[in-house]
Amino acid sequence: MSDSYARLLARSREIALLGSAAHLLHWDAETLQPKAGVAFRAEQFAYFGGATHRLFTAPEVGGWISDCEAAGYAPDSTEAANVRGWRREYDRATRLPQELVEAHERSKGLAREAWIEARRRSDFAHFQPHLEILFGQAREMADHWGWQGSRYNALLDAYEPGADVAQIRAIFDAFRPQLREILPAALAKSAAAPRLEGEFPVEGQIKFNAEVARAVGFDFEAGRIDASTHPFCSRIAPGDTRLTTRYDIHHFASSLFSVLHEAGHGMYEQGVPEGDAYGTPMGSAVSLGIHESQSRLWENLVGRAPEFWEHWFPRAAEHLPALRRYTPAEVCASVNRVEPSFIRVEADQVTYDFHIMLRFEIERRLLDGELALADVPAVWNEEFERSLGLKVPDDAHGCLQDIHWSAGLIGYFPTYTLGNLNAAQLFARARAEEPAIDAELARGDYARLLGWMRRKIHARGSALLPMDLMREATGAPTGVEAQVALLRAKFGLAAS
Amino acid sequence: MSDSYARLLARSREIALLGSAAHLLHWDAETLQPKAGVAFRAEQFAYFGGATHRLFTAPEVGGWISDCEAAGYAPDSTEAANVRGWRREYDRATRLPQELVEAHERSKGLAREAWIEARRRSDFAHFQPHLEILFGQAREMADHWGWQGSRYNALLDAYEPGADVAQIRAIFDAFRPQLREILPAALAKSAAAPRLEGEFPVEGQIKFNAEVARAVGFDFEAGRIDASTHPFCSRIAPGDTRLTTRYDIHHFASSLFSVLHEAGHGMYEQGVPEGDAYGTPMGSAVSLGIHESQSRLWENLVGRAPEFWEHWFPRAAEHLPALRRYTPAEVCASVNRVEPSFIRVEADQVTYDFHIMLRFEIERRLLDGELALADVPAVWNEEFERSLGLKVPDDAHGCLQDIHWSAGLIGYFPTYTLGNLNAAQLFARARAEEPAIDAELARGDYARLLGWMRRKIHARGSALLPMDLMREATGAPTGVEAQVALLRAKFGLAAS
Repeated sequence: MSDSYARLLARSREIALLGSAAHLLHWDAETLQPKAGVAFRAEQFAYFGGATHRLFTAPEVGGWISDCEAAGYAPDSTEAANVRGWRREYDRATRLPQELVEAHERSKGLAREAWIEARRRSDFAHFQPHLEILFGQAREMADHWGWQGSRYNALLDAYEPGADVAQIRAIFDAFRPQLREILPAALAKSAAAPRLEGEFPVEGQIKFNAEVARAVGFDFEAGRIDASTHPFCSRIAPGDTRLTTRYDIHHFASSLFSVLHEAGHGMYEQGVPEGDAYGTPMGSAVSLGIHESQSRLWENLVGRAPEFWEHWFPRAAEHLPALRRYTPAEVCASVNRVEPSFIRVEADQVTYDFHIMLRFEIERRLLDGELALADVPAVWNEEFERSLGLKVPDDAHGCLQDIHWSAGLIGYFPTYTLGNLNAAQLFARARAEEPAIDAELARGDYARLLGWMRRKIHARGSALLPMDLMREATGAPTGVEAQVALLRAKFGLAAS
Repeated sequence: MSDSYARLLARSREIALLGSAAHLLHWDAETLQPKAGVAFRAEQFAYFGGATHRLFTAPEVGGWISDCEAAGYAPDSTEAANVRGWRREYDRATRLPQELVEAHERSKGLAREAWIEARRRSDFAHFQPHLEILFGQAREMADHWGWQGSRYNALLDAYEPGADVAQIRAIFDAFRPQLREILPAALAKSAAAPRLEGEFPVEGQIKFNAEVARAVGFDFEAGRIDASTHPFCSRIAPGDTRLTTRYDIHHFASSLFSVLHEAGHGMYEQGVPEGDAYGTPMGSAVSLGIHESQSRLWENLVGRAPEFWEHWFPRAAEHLPALRRYTPAEVCASVNRVEPSFIRVEADQVTYDFHIMLRFEIERRLLDGELALADVPAVWNEEFERSLGLKVPDDAHGCLQDIHWSAGLIGYFPTYTLGNLNAAQLFARARAEEPAIDAELARGDYARLLGWMRRKIHARGSALLPMDLMREATGAPTGVEAQVALLRAKFGLAAS
């Protein structure tokens, strides 16, 4: 190992030690932190963001990376993958001024409570000043990074390396008409699905969710499940990956599918190389579009399949006795109901991506200066009605619904649709390569499917750009075919 | 404000931003952290301990302190108090080698799991290798700090500035015969006390505990209560002070009195100056003996008084219906039962301090090389039987019972007895100065008593050494008289 490479590993380790504490500070802010602690916590986010940025952007780091680039590591080696990742991150990070990084962290730390309050009161104006700051900072960052065509490209690249607006639009344009064609059949099939009634005590939900999460492969020795306003997954540290969900005694499916979704993220995090690799590119998930493929796989493709409910119904009914009056098929039909609705995270498999397309264009217009923040509620409501045929009753059910902007996650939403498409494409390939998977899923054995994902996706860390990883794993970059085929089959349409 | 003073404040702030994250890492390790995260967390403790030590012991810090000492701040000013505190801490910290500080943090991070496992298996040998390391480091630290008479003095001074073995022994020697005289009367009175039977569901305990904690003055906007193996209190940050307790459905009193105890610590932490003072000596609790006075006040002097149970019994019985078959007087008698027992944290007000005296001498002998760690179980059991007349059945009920050694808290135990004595002395003084307190306590109004503690103790931060603070607040240094008077009255003995 060259000296420069060893120094990069050591610097990565130091950043990881600090960064892991910041992950815990963030996780805690979402789950437990008392209100009066918010202001100091925002200072801490600024401090930690600033400290890790300073450590990584120090001039010597650039020198070490250059040394390693000259060292001629074999392109498919761990060393070469790390050096490529560090170069990419270093060139992005060094373009941002230290003060902007710190100010952005502080602004995010303060925006969260304002968003919660604004959503509670359905009062966009209460949140708008924070949004002005956060979008201002996002524009500034994009300009520092540099962009062509749209500022959106510079931001999207942080979440989905290599992706751009043109590519996303091409995917959306291919996907939209297919979804429009599937929707009537899906609505027709959903008309007969029952709505599950009764009370599902939280303790029963907690036990059933944990049993399912353990069965699909989430490791509780190295993780846990807690409650939060918005379900999420965070790897705090090696050996410590945490999921959250939320409970509604009238809707057990809400907490269950959040757990399956977040467990998908969690198993990815539990599957990337750890130990010394923690904090290096090879020890990190590659992109959000790949991340979301893992969550949607377990949530929708495994958890909403008829064989899942044939297998799990008896356990579900034991933990949640109100289910006993239904059949497994009725429960399955219910959790597959397709119906336009206001809240993205509760949307079904067919209408979900319309939410993403809507949000994508609004964000892009905001970033490119074609839309003012004050006009967002009106534009949102108008376009939502045009897309999904529903009149938005208030901003809490509209443009205030999602946590992302308050967390500075701007330029992020298209990765959800990429995730849906990647999930279907990976699932199809895994089943083709390992035909035993179908019979195993039917009996609640998930090891082979998870093992395939471990090898093809998790263990690869950030060795490749996401599109190249999809090519390596499935033979093709992200496309709409697998997801369209899956939805058409699900709703009784002939292959297109 | 002088430049040097401003620089010290800024450095304190930076250390506080890092230190507060370390507090959360520690709190999390005690409450939530999954097992597989232990090794990395220990690395983090070493990193954070090392980073804060390096920031504080930098040569420029010594220069700034010297500048401030020459600046002639008025002795009773905040500035002078901070400068005295910084000087004290700086002179101690700079004597420790950086590597020892980091190694000690790492060792503590690894010892905790070993102690839990050793206690579970009641297997001292499993924990002994960690103890060898931790006591070795403690001896090394004491030798770096320097000491006269006993190494114990150097360690005790970290927890109770200004205290030493001679003073502790003098207090114990005055206290022991008084407790021996009180014990028979207390045992006799306890013979008639009922044992509370029935089941007390955890949800009821949680609700009742929270109601009581809020009533005595713990601020839930700036704090929370969680569960942990060992109850403790930690101020994570300004506006964020957390208590923990543990639940046993057969013993509601265990969780309640832990909450009252930890709420006492918590209200102290919520009462010291915050804002810019956070992380400075004036924004910090002064010592563990003063800290423990606040916890024992609310736990024993308020919470075990007959008027507490007259007032709270109806609410308790509402949350915990199994109490309905008892009278308030029976509940009060039950929670005041005096009876020699194995576990310190569950010991009554009369036998508790015998546990402390025993542990104190064993620790001192270990530090001064008069006792080998391998001999601790035998010595512990022998001396325990001599002191409390009980044969220790296993090490889990003996020398493995407490978390302290695993957390590197060596030289700490006498502060518990100081706390008992300080609590009685402060309570007596508060009631003498504010006679309305008694009637208010009887009707569940705790504001005046808390207000007195806020002014006399909490707001004073670390302005004075603890013995001087006791003199200022009560007119005398810590003594045994108030506690002896209180116990004699409680168990029907004439004043001595």
